[in-house]
Amino acid sequence: MKKKKILIVGGVAGGASTAARLRRLDENAEIIMFERGEHISFANCGLPYYIGEVIQQRDALLVQTPEGMSAKFNIDIRVFNEVTKIDREKKVLQVKDLKNNRTYEESYDYVVLSPGASPIMPPIPGIKECKNLFTLRNIPDTDAIKSFVDNKKPKTAAVIGGGFIGVEMAENLVHRGLKVSLVEMADQIMGPIDYEMASILHNHIEDKGVQLILEDGVKSFEKDGKEIILQSGKKINTDLIIFSIGVRPENQLAKDANLELGVGGAIKVNEYLETSDPSIYALGDAIQVKDYINGQDAIIPLAGPANKQGRIVANNLVGKKEKYVGTMGSAVAKVFDMTVASVGNNEKIAKKQNLKYEVIHIHPGSHAGYYPGAFPISMKMLFDPKTDKILGAQAVGYDGVEKRIDVIATAIKAGLKATDLKDLELTYAPPFSSAKDPVNMLGFVAENMKHGLVETFQWHEVKALQDNKAVLVDVREEIERELGFIENTINIPLGQLRNRLSELPKKETIYVYCQVGIRGYLAARILTQAGYKVKNLDGGYKTYGAVFR
Amino acid sequence: MKKKKILIVGGVAGGASTAARLRRLDENAEIIMFERGEHISFANCGLPYYIGEVIQQRDALLVQTPEGMSAKFNIDIRVFNEVTKIDREKKVLQVKDLKNNRTYEESYDYVVLSPGASPIMPPIPGIKECKNLFTLRNIPDTDAIKSFVDNKKPKTAAVIGGGFIGVEMAENLVHRGLKVSLVEMADQIMGPIDYEMASILHNHIEDKGVQLILEDGVKSFEKDGKEIILQSGKKINTDLIIFSIGVRPENQLAKDANLELGVGGAIKVNEYLETSDPSIYALGDAIQVKDYINGQDAIIPLAGPANKQGRIVANNLVGKKEKYVGTMGSAVAKVFDMTVASVGNNEKIAKKQNLKYEVIHIHPGSHAGYYPGAFPISMKMLFDPKTDKILGAQAVGYDGVEKRIDVIATAIKAGLKATDLKDLELTYAPPFSSAKDPVNMLGFVAENMKHGLVETFQWHEVKALQDNKAVLVDVREEIERELGFIENTINIPLGQLRNRLSELPKKETIYVYCQVGIRGYLAARILTQAGYKVKNLDGGYKTYGAVFR
Ligand SMILES: Cc1cc2nc3c(=O)[nH]c(=O)nc-3n(C[C@H](O)[C@H](O)[C@H](O)COP(=O)(O)OP(=O)(O)OC[C@H]3O[C@@H](n4cnc5c(N)ncnc54)[C@H](O)[C@@H]3O)c2cc1C
Ligand SMILES: Cc1cc2nc3c(=O)[nH]c(=O)nc-3n(C[C@H](O)[C@H](O)[C@H](O)COP(=O)(O)OP(=O)(O)OC[C@H]3O[C@@H](n4cnc5c(N)ncnc54)[C@H](O)[C@@H]3O)c2cc1C
Ligand SMILES: CC(C)(COP(=O)(O)OP(=O)(O)OC[C@H]1O[C@@H](n2cnc3c(N)ncnc32)[C@H](O)[C@@H]1OP(=O)(O)O)[C@@H](O)C(=O)NCCC(=O)NCCS
Ligand SMILES: CC(C)(COP(=O)(O)OP(=O)(O)OC[C@H]1O[C@@H](n2cnc3c(N)ncnc32)[C@H](O)[C@@H]1OP(=O)(O)O)[C@@H](O)C(=O)NCCC(=O)NCCS
Repeated sequence: MKKKKILIVGGVAGGASTAARLRRLDENAEIIMFERGEHISFANCGLPYYIGEVIQQRDALLVQTPEGMSAKFNIDIRVFNEVTKIDREKKVLQVKDLKNNRTYEESYDYVVLSPGASPIMPPIPGIKECKNLFTLRNIPDTDAIKSFVDNKKPKTAAVIGGGFIGVEMAENLVHRGLKVSLVEMADQIMGPIDYEMASILHNHIEDKGVQLILEDGVKSFEKDGKEIILQSGKKINTDLIIFSIGVRPENQLAKDANLELGVGGAIKVNEYLETSDPSIYALGDAIQVKDYINGQDAIIPLAGPANKQGRIVANNLVGKKEKYVGTMGSAVAKVFDMTVASVGNNEKIAKKQNLKYEVIHIHPGSHAGYYPGAFPISMKMLFDPKTDKILGAQAVGYDGVEKRIDVIATAIKAGLKATDLKDLELTYAPPFSSAKDPVNMLGFVAENMKHGLVETFQWHEVKALQDNKAVLVDVREEIERELGFIENTINIPLGQLRNRLSELPKKETIYVYCQVGIRGYLAARILTQAGYKVKNLDGGYKTYGAVFR
Repeated sequence: MKKKKILIVGGVAGGASTAARLRRLDENAEIIMFERGEHISFANCGLPYYIGEVIQQRDALLVQTPEGMSAKFNIDIRVFNEVTKIDREKKVLQVKDLKNNRTYEESYDYVVLSPGASPIMPPIPGIKECKNLFTLRNIPDTDAIKSFVDNKKPKTAAVIGGGFIGVEMAENLVHRGLKVSLVEMADQIMGPIDYEMASILHNHIEDKGVQLILEDGVKSFEKDGKEIILQSGKKINTDLIIFSIGVRPENQLAKDANLELGVGGAIKVNEYLETSDPSIYALGDAIQVKDYINGQDAIIPLAGPANKQGRIVANNLVGKKEKYVGTMGSAVAKVFDMTVASVGNNEKIAKKQNLKYEVIHIHPGSHAGYYPGAFPISMKMLFDPKTDKILGAQAVGYDGVEKRIDVIATAIKAGLKATDLKDLELTYAPPFSSAKDPVNMLGFVAENMKHGLVETFQWHEVKALQDNKAVLVDVREEIERELGFIENTINIPLGQLRNRLSELPKKETIYVYCQVGIRGYLAARILTQAGYKVKNLDGGYKTYGAVFR
C-alpha cells in the first residue's frame, strides 16, 4: 500500500486536531503540518486571560510544542512556513520558509486547509497611524498587548466591538486596572443573545466600571490613536485600543486556487468537509457550515466545531466516511462575575429567517433557594409553536448557566421538542439544582402555552399597552413595588385576587404581571377560569426591568 | 359540572406538587391536603445542611407554609391530620385529627397517595434503648438532631449507612466539629456508583477526617447507644448515632386497603400513576417505578421524580392524560469538596440484570487545563456493545461533575447512542469546558472501541495479569512513576515507543497503561499497527490507583 501524503495548512485548533487523529488512524501516512507562525496548537481562547494575568504562565497557552507533538505523533511540523499557493494541477503546495526566506514546493495526495479567520480591519481614517491599536488572534498579538500594558502602563483603554473577544478583553483590562470604554455599533453587546438578555450584561459591565457606548462606531482615529472620534461626534481619549469587530475567513489560498467560496467568502465544503476539489479538505473558522437550526449557510467560528471537524476530516482521509451535519453555535462566555451562554437561533435570526416562533422568558434559581449561593438565571427559549421544535435558548446568570444550555443543546441535537424538556430527569441536590430544574421549567411553560393554559405578552409590548390605556395588573405584594414597577398599573396581590375579581372589567383583556412570571401565570389561570380574557407578562418585571432599569 | 373532590395524603414533595398543579388546572375542584406532621412543603433535601449550619435559617426550609399555600392556591390544608384508612367501598378516608385527638371521615372522588418512605429500623439489639440515636426524615427529626448537637455538644458521632443521607450527615457533622465514623455494610459508600469510583470518595472523606468502616454492620448497641458493637467485633464509642441505612415505602394505608403492592412493598401503579383502584393515584417514594434503562420494577426514591409525578397526577386528574415512563435515577451529591453524580445503571446492576456491557473510564479536566481551577473529573460510562445504547454513567470530581451527568441523562432520555455523544455541540470557553467536552470524549472512546481501534482491560484484571507474568508496559515518563506505578511493569515512555518496539515480544499480548488512558491508547494504536496484539488499561493508573493507593 502506498503511503498517503497529507499536507495540513494551519497548526492550531483544526489543523493539529486533524493531524493527531490522522496519525492514530494511520501510522504510515506522511503528515506535514505547515504553520506560518511560531506556535502550533496554542490556546487561542486563553489569550485574553493571559493578558489579564488570570492565566499566569505563558507556557500554559502552548497546549503542544512542535517538539512534543512531533515526538508523540511522528508528524513533520514546519513552523514559520507559510503556504502561499495551491497548485491543483501539479498537486503541489508552494511554501515560503519565512525564517530562511526561501520558497519550495511540496507534493500532496491530500491537502487539509485549516487557516482560520483573521480580525476584520476596515480602512477607517487614521487606523494605520495608530501606535496603540491591537487586534488579538495569536501569541505574538498577545505578547504585544501584554507588553504594552506591562511597560507603557496605559490608564485607559477603548475596546472597539462588543463580541466575545471584545468583552473578554474589556474584562481582562479592567482586571489590569485600566479604565475601559467599550464601543459597539449595535444596540447591544454579545450578538448571539437578544437585546433584553444583553441588557442584563450591560447593567453588569457598567456596574463593573466599563463605560458602555452602544449604537456608535468609530469615524476616525486621531493623534496616532490617542483620540477616537465616533460617528456620533463623541470623542474618546485613550491610551490603548483593542480592535475586535469580528473576523473573516482566511480564504486567500482557496480563492487563488479557484476553490468554491460561499457566504462571506468562507470556503465551501460538502458534508464530508471536502472543498470543490476532492483532494482538498477544509475546516474550522475558514469554512461555511450549515446552521443546524434553520439549514441556511453560515459562518460560525468556534473552537468546538473546529476540533470536531478535525477529527472528521481525519476519519474521511482514511476512508472512515463521516458527515459533519452543521453547527448550532453553542457558546459561552464569562462576563466578569456573570456567565452568558446560548445555543441555536436567537429572536433576531428567527425574524430575519421568517421563522414562526414563540418566546419564553424565565428566571429560576441556579439551585435550591434555601441553600446558600443561589442566584437567578435569566433564560429565554424560542420554539416553533406548530412543530414544537426548539429553535434556540439563551441564559445569563452567575452560576449553572452553561449547564442548562448544554442540556438544551443536547436536546436540540437529539431532536427533542420544547415540551419534552419537562420530562428530562436531571440530577438534583440542593447545592446543584432544584427538584424541577430550570430546563424542566422551560418545558412546563412551553406546554402550558401550547395547551392554551396561558397567553403571554412581551416586555416590548408594554409601551403600546400603556399608550392604549390597557388594564395592567401587578399581582405582586405592595412592598415589592418599592423596587420598581410598570407605570399605570393597578396592584392586586395574588393572594387577594380571588376576592377582588369584581374590580376588574370583564370586557377588556387583563394584562397581568409579577416579578418573574410565575404568579402572573397563577393569576392568569384564576382569571381565565373566572371568564376573563387575560395575558401574562412573559418573564415578569425582571425581564422588563432589565431593559428599563 | 360537579366539582371534583380530591383528597391528597402527604403534603410535601409529591403531595404539594400535585395540589399546586391541580389548582392551576381546575379552579373549582375541592382539594384537601392531609399532612400528619406540622409542616407541608418543606425542603427534605436541605435538612442535613441545616444541621450542619450551612443553611442558617430554619425558615428557609419551609418552602411553603400552610397559610401561604392556602392563600395562593385556595387549598384546604390540614396539618396534624393523619389519614388512617381508605374505605374504598364508601369512598371515604378516615382521618385522625392529631391535635384534637378525634377521628372523622372525608369523602372523595379521587385520592392521591404521596406518603413517602420511612427510615428502615431493623430490630438490632439495644436499638430501642439508645438515647442518642436519630433517623432523619422531617423537620422534627432535624430539630431533634440539631438541638442534640447544639446542647449536648457531642464530640463523636457514628453514622450508620453510607448512602446519600448518611454521607451528607457525616459531612455536616464534621462541619459542626464532631469526629465522625461512617459504618457501611457494603464494600463501598454511595451505592449508585461502582466500587472503583466510590474509592475516590473513600480517599476523600478519609482525608477529611472521617473514619470509614466498610464491610461491617452493627451487631448491637450497648450502654444506651454510647457503645456500638460491630459484626466484626470492633467497638465504637460514640456520643451521637445517625441511623440511615435506607428507606422503605410507606405502604400501610395502601396495604390495608388491599391495593396491589410491588417490589419491596412499594405501591403498584400503572403508567398513569393509578393504583389498582382507578380512583386512587399514588406517587413519590412510596411507589414502584420502571427502571428506565432495563425496564425492571424498581424503587427509586428521589425528589425530582416525585415532583414531576405530582404534575402528571394532576394532569391525569383533570383528564389531560399523561404517562410516567420510568425513572433513570439521575442523582447528585456533594461530598465535602467533591461532587458525585450518576444516571442509569451501574456495573453492579448491569451484572445482576445480565446486561451485556462495555465499560469506559476517563479523567478529563473540568475545564481547559490552562485556565486556573481545572480539576479532573473521573467518569465511567457503560454501554451495550451491540446496540450502542448508553446504560449509565457516573462521575466524581470537584467541578462540572453534575453538568456532564445531566447532559448524558438528556442523551439517554432522547435515545442517543454512546457514540452520538461525540457529536454533541456543547458550550466551550476556557473557564467552563474544553473544546472537546468530557462528554464528547466518552463518545470518542466508545467509537474507538466499537470500531476496534483499541481493546481495553480493567483495573480489576491487573492482578491476574501480574500473576500470569503478562507483559505490562508503562508508557508514562519515568518521573511520573515516582508517584506510583503498577508492580512488574516495564517503562517505555510513549515518545520512545516507535524506536523501542524490538524490546517487546511479538507473540504475547502487550498490556499498556499510562496515567489516564490517552497515551496508552496512542501506544496501543502504534503497537497494533506494528502488528502487536495489545490492550490498554481503561482509565489508566488513575482508576487503578484510586483502588490501590
Ligand atoms: C482571543 C480569542 C478567543 C477565543 N475564544 C473562544 C472561546 O472561548 N470559545 C470558542 O469556541 N472559540 C473561541 N475562539 C475561536 C477559536 O479559537 C477558533 O474557532 C478556532 O481556533 C478555529 O480553529 P482554526 O483551526 O480554524 O483556526 P486557528 O486556530 O486560528 O488556526 C489557524 C492557523 O493557521 C495558520 N495559517 C493561516 N494561513 C496559513 C498559511 N497560508 N500557511 C500556514 N499557516 C497558515 C494561522 O497562522 C493560524 O495559526 C477564540 C478566538 C480568539 C482569537
Ligand atoms: C434528609 C434527606 C435528604 C434528601 N436529599 C435528596 C436530594 O438531595 N435529592 C433528591 O432527589 N432527593 C432527596 N431526598 C429524597 C426526597 O426528599 C424524596 O424523594 C421526596 O421528598 C419524596 O416525596 P414524597 O412526596 O414521596 O414524600 P415526602 O416528601 O416524604 O412526603 C410525604 C409526606 O406524607 C406524610 N404522610 C405519610 N403518611 C401520611 C398519612 N397517612 N396521613 C397524612 N400524612 C402522611 C408524611 O408525614 C410526609 O410529610 C432526601 C430525603 C431526605 C429525608
Ligand atoms: C491538542 C490537539 C493537538 C488535539 O489533540 P488530540 O490528541 O486529538 O486531542 P486530546 O489530547 O484531547 O485527546 C483526544 C483523544 O484521546 C482519546 N481519549 C481521551 N481520553 C481517553 C482515555 N481516558 N482513554 C483512551 N482514550 C482517550 C479520545 O478518544 C481522542 O482520540 P480519538 O480522536 O482518536 O478518538 C488540538 O486539539 C489542539 O491543537 N488544541 C489546541 C488548539 C485549540 O484547540 N484551540 C482552540 C481552543 S483554545
Ligand atoms: C413548591 C411546591 C408546592 C410546588 O409548587 P409549584 O407551584 O408546582 O412549583 P413551582 O413554584 O416550582 O412553580 C412551577 C410552576 O410555575 C410555572 N412557571 C415557572 N416559571 C414560570 C415563569 N417564569 N412564567 C410562567 N410560569 C412559570 C411552571 O410552568 C409550573 O407550572 P405548571 O406546573 O402549571 O406548568 C412543591 O414543589 C413543594 O412542596 N416543594 C417542596 C418540597 C419538596 O419538593 N421537597 C423535595 C425537594 S427538597
